[in-house]
Amino acid sequence: MGIGTTHTIALIGSGTIGLSLAALHLTKDPHSKVIIYDTRPDLEAYINSTLPGYLVNADVQQCMARLHLAPTLKDAVERADVVQEQGPENLPFKQSLWPQIETHAPSHTLFLSSTSGIPASQQCTSMRDPSRLLVVHPYNPPHILPLLELVPSPQTSPETTTRTQSFFARLGRVPIPLTRECPGFVSNRLAFALLREACSLVSQGIVSVQDLDSIVTSSMGPRWSVAGPFKSYHAGGGTEGLRGFMEKIGGTVGMCWEESEKGYRENNIVVGGEWQEEVCRQAEEAYGKSGVGDTAERDRKTRRVLEAVGERERGR
Amino acid sequence: MGIGTTHTIALIGSGTIGLSLAALHLTKDPHSKVIIYDTRPDLEAYINSTLPGYLVNADVQQCMARLHLAPTLKDAVERADVVQEQGPENLPFKQSLWPQIETHAPSHTLFLSSTSGIPASQQCTSMRDPSRLLVVHPYNPPHILPLLELVPSPQTSPETTTRTQSFFARLGRVPIPLTRECPGFVSNRLAFALLREACSLVSQGIVSVQDLDSIVTSSMGPRWSVAGPFKSYHAGGGTEGLRGFMEKIGGTVGMCWEESEKGYRENNIVVGGEWQEEVCRQAEEAYGKSGVGDTAERDRKTRRVLEAVGERERGR
Repeated sequence: MGIGTTHTIALIGSGTIGLSLAALHLTKDPHSKVIIYDTRPDLEAYINSTLPGYLVNADVQQCMARLHLAPTLKDAVERADVVQEQGPENLPFKQSLWPQIETHAPSHTLFLSSTSGIPASQQCTSMRDPSRLLVVHPYNPPHILPLLELVPSPQTSPETTTRTQSFFARLGRVPIPLTRECPGFVSNRLAFALLREACSLVSQGIVSVQDLDSIVTSSMGPRWSVAGPFKSYHAGGGTEGLRGFMEKIGGTVGMCWEESEKGYRENNIVVGGEWQEEVCRQAEEAYGKSGVGDTAERDRKTRRVLEAVGERERGR
Repeated sequence: MGIGTTHTIALIGSGTIGLSLAALHLTKDPHSKVIIYDTRPDLEAYINSTLPGYLVNADVQQCMARLHLAPTLKDAVERADVVQEQGPENLPFKQSLWPQIETHAPSHTLFLSSTSGIPASQQCTSMRDPSRLLVVHPYNPPHILPLLELVPSPQTSPETTTRTQSFFARLGRVPIPLTRECPGFVSNRLAFALLREACSLVSQGIVSVQDLDSIVTSSMGPRWSVAGPFKSYHAGGGTEGLRGFMEKIGGTVGMCWEESEKGYRENNIVVGGEWQEEVCRQAEEAYGKSGVGDTAERDRKTRRVLEAVGERERGR
């Protein structure tokens, strides 16, 4: 899989993640061939009506000409360099899928699962060679947001991870390998930690759902687009860096952590707690009952933010 | 203080926040007059050498012509429409400052403290009229990042808050009033909640400091520049909005929250814990021993991100 060779990518499953990944491969590598396998009966009409919307800033016709629909799983994977699976989040499905793929795919093919929660170590139990399977967790939508978390099982070979990392880096993505499996991986663990505090503060009546969102978009959102939390606080610590930050602000940090724990305990901030109704009600009041809105505007702005930060897509 | 009138802003204290606020007022309102009061002996030389660096995309000479240094506190505040205090984070200092300001300032003047931790209810104890004092907590640097958290004490009058909100909205800022005082206010509570999880994951060896920063800048940073966490998850829940999100993903969210708590407990993620040395070491390895870096580049990129999101500064 050197630069300049033509890659064939087989995508198993064509939900929103599958479509976004198809767009990623088709637009970031102008020579790639993408094969989609999905059991839905209206697949061709569905792909033709939805995928072009994902192909922004690209020659749609040229992209669609490199897209193929496979009638069987065997047809999808037998000439693939990369197989990416985004089927149902269902362990038996994935456990039975990989041995079939293993039977039909070439020996060099990368086997990647887009799961957000089922680790490779559980998916691989019926594989002949579990060293070939790697979780590649995208941040939605992956044709726009560059992060891919690579989460190896204890059986995944280092070569599988490094080849996958090179492959996505050449597509201008940001593939980050974790050292090992962990529930929620890293991105969701971080985001859900902030979400919990957000739910707690809203449920305590300190701030509304909409005002909390405004606080984030006008402060840490832009800040963390440019530099992550550690780099930001390292800069905030002056000549002593993060060490200086913890010395100067540590007292406040510790007080906040204690207050947060107290807030979760006293307001029962667990999933399904009473607080949930009020937070959902406020979200509906602020943003409408349905969450289906104008993703085109969101995606356009997100692209512009990424360009503003430094042409990350072109630079790597 | 209607639109079009000339405002005089007295800034008490000229550290980095004071300089940034001076730049904010001078550049966002081309008719404002800014008066700085600070007891440092080299004030004039210091201001002349540092402030111009903050006046980006502005007529520096025209801005500096509207800046005045006051020899005494009385001179600073006696004709001010707004007094903003960013002196030492020291309760006795602030408690003794406000009654002096109250003695010399006009009756319509807004009294605002930039403190990140000392609530107005503690600062105001010696004031004749505590209803005039409001905490206005900026997100650093305030001449770039638009958030201002307005944190009223139980004594702060609603009028003080609404007048302050209007004043900063007219400067193209995002002033968000909280309903009441809370330790760390909202922005730091949210950011420190994510920071704790980040420290925990690094201390568990799952990801490095630098890779964690890359994860944030390539996923939730850009996402949360465009839409806050609630709006994002509301969109992620499809036709059922946030309610649908919690139904579909709630199990994973709950599991992450439990894992996070376990991680804090087992790895003693409190301020001053053993984990801190390794996190600081990795930050130094990744970003250099000193946190003092190229803030010009950071600030330029941050401005571009804010422009990309929607000209927030001009739109309000």
